[in-house]
Amino acid sequence: MTGPIPSTNPVLPGEDFKEWHHALGGELTSVPDDSWKTVLEEKHPDMLHLLQFPYNGEPPKRLVTAKAVTSNPLHFVRNHGGIPIIEEDKWFLSLDGLVANPRKYTSRDIKDRSKFPQMEKSVTIQCSGTRRIEQISLYGGQQDEIPQAPWAEGAISTARYRGVSLKKIIKDCGGLVNGAKHLELYGAETYIKDLEAMNYVVSIPWTKVKANEVMLVWEMNGQPLPKIHGFPLRVIVLGYIGARSVKWVYRIKAIEQPSHGPIQKKEYLHFSQQVGKHNLKPTYGLQIQEMPVSSAIMSPWSKHVIIHNGRIHCKGWAYSGGGRWPERVELSSDSGFSWYEVPPENLSKKGRWTWRTWEMDHPCDVEGWVEIVCRCWDNALNTQPLTVRSAWNWGLHVTHSAHRISVYSINKSRAETQRRLNFLEERGIPLAPITRYEIVQTQTESEYDQYWREHEPRDPSD
Amino acid sequence: MTGPIPSTNPVLPGEDFKEWHHALGGELTSVPDDSWKTVLEEKHPDMLHLLQFPYNGEPPKRLVTAKAVTSNPLHFVRNHGGIPIIEEDKWFLSLDGLVANPRKYTSRDIKDRSKFPQMEKSVTIQCSGTRRIEQISLYGGQQDEIPQAPWAEGAISTARYRGVSLKKIIKDCGGLVNGAKHLELYGAETYIKDLEAMNYVVSIPWTKVKANEVMLVWEMNGQPLPKIHGFPLRVIVLGYIGARSVKWVYRIKAIEQPSHGPIQKKEYLHFSQQVGKHNLKPTYGLQIQEMPVSSAIMSPWSKHVIIHNGRIHCKGWAYSGGGRWPERVELSSDSGFSWYEVPPENLSKKGRWTWRTWEMDHPCDVEGWVEIVCRCWDNALNTQPLTVRSAWNWGLHVTHSAHRISVYSINKSRAETQRRLNFLEERGIPLAPITRYEIVQTQTESEYDQYWREHEPRDPSD
Repeated sequence: MTGPIPSTNPVLPGEDFKEWHHALGGELTSVPDDSWKTVLEEKHPDMLHLLQFPYNGEPPKRLVTAKAVTSNPLHFVRNHGGIPIIEEDKWFLSLDGLVANPRKYTSRDIKDRSKFPQMEKSVTIQCSGTRRIEQISLYGGQQDEIPQAPWAEGAISTARYRGVSLKKIIKDCGGLVNGAKHLELYGAETYIKDLEAMNYVVSIPWTKVKANEVMLVWEMNGQPLPKIHGFPLRVIVLGYIGARSVKWVYRIKAIEQPSHGPIQKKEYLHFSQQVGKHNLKPTYGLQIQEMPVSSAIMSPWSKHVIIHNGRIHCKGWAYSGGGRWPERVELSSDSGFSWYEVPPENLSKKGRWTWRTWEMDHPCDVEGWVEIVCRCWDNALNTQPLTVRSAWNWGLHVTHSAHRISVYSINKSRAETQRRLNFLEERGIPLAPITRYEIVQTQTESEYDQYWREHEPRDPSD
Repeated sequence: MTGPIPSTNPVLPGEDFKEWHHALGGELTSVPDDSWKTVLEEKHPDMLHLLQFPYNGEPPKRLVTAKAVTSNPLHFVRNHGGIPIIEEDKWFLSLDGLVANPRKYTSRDIKDRSKFPQMEKSVTIQCSGTRRIEQISLYGGQQDEIPQAPWAEGAISTARYRGVSLKKIIKDCGGLVNGAKHLELYGAETYIKDLEAMNYVVSIPWTKVKANEVMLVWEMNGQPLPKIHGFPLRVIVLGYIGARSVKWVYRIKAIEQPSHGPIQKKEYLHFSQQVGKHNLKPTYGLQIQEMPVSSAIMSPWSKHVIIHNGRIHCKGWAYSGGGRWPERVELSSDSGFSWYEVPPENLSKKGRWTWRTWEMDHPCDVEGWVEIVCRCWDNALNTQPLTVRSAWNWGLHVTHSAHRISVYSINKSRAETQRRLNFLEERGIPLAPITRYEIVQTQTESEYDQYWREHEPRDPSD
């Protein structure tokens, strides 16, 4: 059911998107090449490049949960256009729309501690497309992003950010006026939708800003924000999907209604299963903001052959959006009938805005193929639906069903299996691939006869 | 879950098997080429060649259930070696082992109505590997047949046979003696197992013969038995898997115990799910004889886009082994929660040894992807397990779970969908492939605004 992510790199080159940039001409002509150069400079050489341009990449499976905090070169990237190359001293941020006193801020203004108190937070950012590959493998969707990235379990990462609360900046502009209830965020990257070129624009509600849950940040894990992650300034919306944490932000506009920009209006929507290609309207969709509770097994991987002594070592992550956090992670090796709790001490530290990584020796008696399933309960006792189908929707967002992998279990705590392993080892016969036929005598003619002397025949005589 | 059968032809060439025949030399050198010539002469040009040598083929999906009786060129073929080219007047059948008077019979003897009364029967033959592709797509098995054919839903066919009851021949030899309880059947095709070359040999119990359920046949659908189907004489075991209906039969030996030949002893075994590659013993397996109740949807096909008026037309087959027959066929379009009966008049005629083909306009309200599931109840009220996993076993035999297909339902009984179809038709925009992104305005700016004026906002204000 859960097909593995392709191992080609890049998985998709994004030729259409490159050609549109070339066709637009001017400054945009060289953007695809420049952006790729930045990827090579700033990201880990082992990143899985799902889409070369606009760049979409996630860390390789073995590194996703290697540490509870992701290093900058390994942090996943979901870009919608080229990477803007911005000179910090020429850059400024405009605050306008329904604020008492519209203003412009330089980078120096924003970092000035005498004007704005600074804050630091550890934050997990998750793309609403995480684990989309599982929905794709069931049924293709609408390719609503151009082209749509087939994310695996790595479109989620955690970092520590330094910045200021957007609330302080709004206050510095004299506060909101005339019924403003939303903030429209403008990012400098190109965005192309239905052949129209524009910038990246979304909005967030004022209630979120008012609660000091929206940061403007310039530091990521103690280092200047990398170009690919939004230098010189990006938004971090705590507990919301990554799509709202606008990079290369240059304008924030106070407005009455949620943004009418196409990303807010037509993308990142969650449809009911009765909405498909031929009856879809944007207002049928729920705009995705907080992610529900979810989890993933990062080790072992599907189709692996595991030799073990009755317990399989498993590792992974668990996360819940909106300020909720994982309280309990459970594993099943009977497709979700009986569950074993990951010992609480095997989960990484709790944080209101962060995932928790976990590991466990999971009891598994089975000899042969086994499906290991993972689910999480958050502090509000939300848990995950059990099947990908139950999470399936036309836009292929929010794949939060219990995560399932299939591994071939060789349980050497069974004497018979241990004997066969010894036999193969003595003869230097490899165990993998499991589908290769081996000529191994498993029963002598006399053992076979002995069996039938001692047992009832295959068919009764009368 | 149910991956489609590959459309390449042949799916597998069988190079190893060809090379072994070349290496054995002598008469066997030219067998792969000669056999392929026979395939081209005797089989329908649209057959799906799963394995070129030894030849394994099934009719293309659209023709499997086109008629309740399969024409000879379309009947599925599961050969284990080369096709023997036998001159009928030089051929004879030996009856020996534990019979009172061992004898040899020419073709003329067997067809002599004054010696043996003739019988005609309509018989469905099914390979125990039918629908194996569904198990393969979940988890690979042991490649226990060399190489293993990835059968789809077409390894089942029905024909009318003329011949004699094997019981009459045994009686003609004076009957069984000295505790004989099984008949070992020898076919002239080559069979290679663990690099040993031999003929095809299996056995069946005397009880089956005694009940007149084992025929020796020379006529198939009113025509001489084709070379590829066993000319001049083959066995037809009513209600058993095809593997027991030995083709090109030249010897029948009465024995005490089931055959120790590798096909009976090591192949066509059904293992529990705790038996895998590293603890397998032949005696852990149940020798497969009768097939359980099963069914398949032959139209529509998985991944098809269906435009309909609230009902999807479905066609397929249903079968139960051992002399049982389908009594009720049911379809579900909600993954097996609620079921609709195929009207009894829409099933082909009942027969004790035959499948029933069926068709139905199945109610389907859904807009979008829908899983249509089919199951059958036989006259003993046996029915099918619901998931492929529940049927999975290391040998990948007996895939009898409820058959599932995924189709994209466009329900034009919904006014909104009909309007969109008209819109696309007027502009000549094709409906397929469903995954292609179309730039279609689905809501005007003012309709969008209107919606939000009339509804509660995305986020509450307090």
